[in-house]
Amino acid sequence: MNNYIERDIPEYIEGYGSVVPFNGAYQNSIVKRKTSVKESSVGPEDKKILESIDEALDKVDIKDGMTISFHHHLRNGDKVFNMVLEKIAERGIKDLTVAASAIFPVHAPLVEYIKKGIVTNIIASYISGPVAKCISQGGLKNPAIMQTHGGRGRAIESGDVKIDVAFIAAPTSDDYGNINGLNGKSACGALGYAIADAEYADKVIAITDTIVPYPNCPIEISQIYVDYVVVVDSIGDPEGIVSGTTKITKDPVGLKIAKMAAGVMEASGLIKDGMSFQTGAGGISLAVAQELKDIMIRDNIKGSFASGGITGYIVDMFKEGLFQYLFDVQCFDLKAVESYSTSHKHQRMSASMYGNPHNKGAVVNKLDIVILGATEIDTNFNVNVTTASDGTIMGGSGGHSDTAAGAKLTIIVSNLMKARLPLIRDKITTVNTPGETIDVLVTERGIAINPRRQDLIEKLKGTNLPIMTIEKLKEICEELTGKPKDIELKEDIVAVVEYRDGTVIDVIRKS
Amino acid sequence: MNNYIERDIPEYIEGYGSVVPFNGAYQNSIVKRKTSVKESSVGPEDKKILESIDEALDKVDIKDGMTISFHHHLRNGDKVFNMVLEKIAERGIKDLTVAASAIFPVHAPLVEYIKKGIVTNIIASYISGPVAKCISQGGLKNPAIMQTHGGRGRAIESGDVKIDVAFIAAPTSDDYGNINGLNGKSACGALGYAIADAEYADKVIAITDTIVPYPNCPIEISQIYVDYVVVVDSIGDPEGIVSGTTKITKDPVGLKIAKMAAGVMEASGLIKDGMSFQTGAGGISLAVAQELKDIMIRDNIKGSFASGGITGYIVDMFKEGLFQYLFDVQCFDLKAVESYSTSHKHQRMSASMYGNPHNKGAVVNKLDIVILGATEIDTNFNVNVTTASDGTIMGGSGGHSDTAAGAKLTIIVSNLMKARLPLIRDKITTVNTPGETIDVLVTERGIAINPRRQDLIEKLKGTNLPIMTIEKLKEICEELTGKPKDIELKEDIVAVVEYRDGTVIDVIRKS
Repeated sequence: MNNYIERDIPEYIEGYGSVVPFNGAYQNSIVKRKTSVKESSVGPEDKKILESIDEALDKVDIKDGMTISFHHHLRNGDKVFNMVLEKIAERGIKDLTVAASAIFPVHAPLVEYIKKGIVTNIIASYISGPVAKCISQGGLKNPAIMQTHGGRGRAIESGDVKIDVAFIAAPTSDDYGNINGLNGKSACGALGYAIADAEYADKVIAITDTIVPYPNCPIEISQIYVDYVVVVDSIGDPEGIVSGTTKITKDPVGLKIAKMAAGVMEASGLIKDGMSFQTGAGGISLAVAQELKDIMIRDNIKGSFASGGITGYIVDMFKEGLFQYLFDVQCFDLKAVESYSTSHKHQRMSASMYGNPHNKGAVVNKLDIVILGATEIDTNFNVNVTTASDGTIMGGSGGHSDTAAGAKLTIIVSNLMKARLPLIRDKITTVNTPGETIDVLVTERGIAINPRRQDLIEKLKGTNLPIMTIEKLKEICEELTGKPKDIELKEDIVAVVEYRDGTVIDVIRKS
Repeated sequence: MNNYIERDIPEYIEGYGSVVPFNGAYQNSIVKRKTSVKESSVGPEDKKILESIDEALDKVDIKDGMTISFHHHLRNGDKVFNMVLEKIAERGIKDLTVAASAIFPVHAPLVEYIKKGIVTNIIASYISGPVAKCISQGGLKNPAIMQTHGGRGRAIESGDVKIDVAFIAAPTSDDYGNINGLNGKSACGALGYAIADAEYADKVIAITDTIVPYPNCPIEISQIYVDYVVVVDSIGDPEGIVSGTTKITKDPVGLKIAKMAAGVMEASGLIKDGMSFQTGAGGISLAVAQELKDIMIRDNIKGSFASGGITGYIVDMFKEGLFQYLFDVQCFDLKAVESYSTSHKHQRMSASMYGNPHNKGAVVNKLDIVILGATEIDTNFNVNVTTASDGTIMGGSGGHSDTAAGAKLTIIVSNLMKARLPLIRDKITTVNTPGETIDVLVTERGIAINPRRQDLIEKLKGTNLPIMTIEKLKEICEELTGKPKDIELKEDIVAVVEYRDGTVIDVIRKS
């Protein structure tokens, strides 16, 4: 069958189950009750500190077929995931589902566990590196499930993903499981992606390398959710924890795109007192933030909040009073960590509060402008940030679809050529974000506005910005790159791409 | 049947149901799964601000038999409870259950609604004033249910109390339902008692008199839990919000008791670096805090945390570095509100985090010493703070049973005579806190130690404190007051006293 955006999806997928097809960004077809969580009673005499991960695995009675979860705040410096999987593997456990908020190159040992049938299901919002390659080549027994950040919160809260044991890498913890990410040798700041895991897993194990006296204030994850605490030598490598990508681009083409995007934002009328803004940590996105900063200072504009993964650039704008508040789901650098630990106005949010479409209103709903990237975009403005143009998984939506659905103005900024391949295509390899939630595409050669946004087209008419149809922009793109060859993918489905509401927006086939 | 502490309780109570008898403070006989909560989807276009309480009642489709909830952070200055009930009463709704964290004299209009059958069930942790009198006299159709603060959190989380609509008095809210109690004309500080209501009610309505720009940081109750926001002229009377009882006693007898209690604490060995402490806001309890303060300064002791409802006296100790952290479920005065709003180390806790025995470890479990009061105590150390000696309801456990069960050392401080009646009796009117969780009784004429605590008896032998058996203390007491007459109560059960784990520890009969 074809879903709402004409992607060909089976009604039933082996190893996934029945498909609820994507039916439009605001249909919310499957709102349900939240799942019920097992109560546990910890009395005054009970201790939570355990000697080792092995002891914790005994305590939670780890067994075949369980779902275990991890968060990715330590990014490519994370050691906890591998440490836990190694101990589980030694036990001959089979058929685990790994629900990780993201999987990075550092998690390469997982490939071995996949091959051995120890891990047969993977659910994540972003997958890159050897695990992504392994999945793309059909190495995983069942299709991986790709979710958005908000969609992961939704899935965990609704019980679509029922976590048996959550392992929480804790930069600091006290002996009763109060956790924060502010301090310790593996400090990473806000722990927004781990909240649903802590709240909805039946068992929660904190793994820390920095035990602090009780109580570990400010408390990000409370003792009332944590069963056990295990102290290890090191949970992470600081080099890998702080993201390396948070630098403004120096490429003149990128800077040109950023300036054009700023022009669109200005013309939209949304740059005004009380505005809210989010941008990614990519080089062009950060350049857009820089442009916005200049405009806000020039026009003396005081914004309301900036949100997302927070970078030092955004903290600077916050400190200069351009934004009064920050909503932070993860800190990208030490400047963000420092700000988060010192100001009440730098507010932590959970992934669910950030982008879950089935709670009582996520922060993305309050966003005026979001700046996003794209690997590919089709002429209906559907976007792919999940697979490379050869079909290999190399990322995932993360908060892409969530913010696009929520924001009043969603702008994609991108070079027309990506690794010598065309950005704009008739049909893209994978869709993770539907075109109905994308308003504008800004490239170095021109700007295309989604025809659904006639209001924006009107507003931009009076400017000297190079507005054109996306079809025209595709032509220019193909003049540069040539027409892309159709890629040959096999029939086998290696991953299912869920939209934030849990419907299936696309599938990824074996490459 | 008789329960574990020999209270005579029916197996089935009309209007309450089957009784699970109290079976010991640490048996936790009925740990279950948490209840599942209805998901709601609020999209980018949806607004939450409504024109009036009436519009909110329409939106949530209020109807016969529903359970509605309120919190008591505005104490005897609360206007929200009456405002909402008045509007509901106008609709001819019947058979409501009111789950209020506490009911004060200001809630007197409820008596009328009880008489009319609009409200037929009441669940609360503390009831005083005309409503208490009405219940005691058999005015309520079904028995009221008295819970502890932690027990209320447990009941709501487990679904024993399933709230259809929670009404949250919000000192400040933004248009998306982010709430805090720090500011506004009805500022009351931490909103710990409202958290379970927000998280577990199917519908949540914030009622505020101070709407602030989005986002209302720091956020105490998140937008993800709030369906609607109603703005009214005033939610509270500041005179009634700040408690009037938080003054150290000037009575020499009270001060003597406090000094003796301090002697017990010293002898126990628990006054040392890293200690934790809680005391109530009563005059003698605060005098004990003052004694402790002097000892800590004298011996240069740095405590870990103080917890509970926080008063200015405790804030002073925090600011002087005697405690490094405060765990705050409610602020008793403006000094506490101010401290809470300025320090990360003054940490909010929910009622569940405070005292729920069925989460993964409440803060009370980490308490070293708690100082509590008593209206009556029996020779098994069972305590009553719920009814007067004539059987009339005039209070309730609140956090009494929770802290007593958690703390390493639970000390009751009280005059031997209470309104010319004896404190110590063979059989007390009502038991809310079981004797097995009480360690010491300190009165002006002597100190009794629970025989379960032979370790303490040993430690106190070497002191010059007037240690004696509780039987001996009862004799002294009766010399002062005479032997109390048995009171005549009718058979009808007007209230059921639940222990924190949901078992029935006692019943209250019509007076």
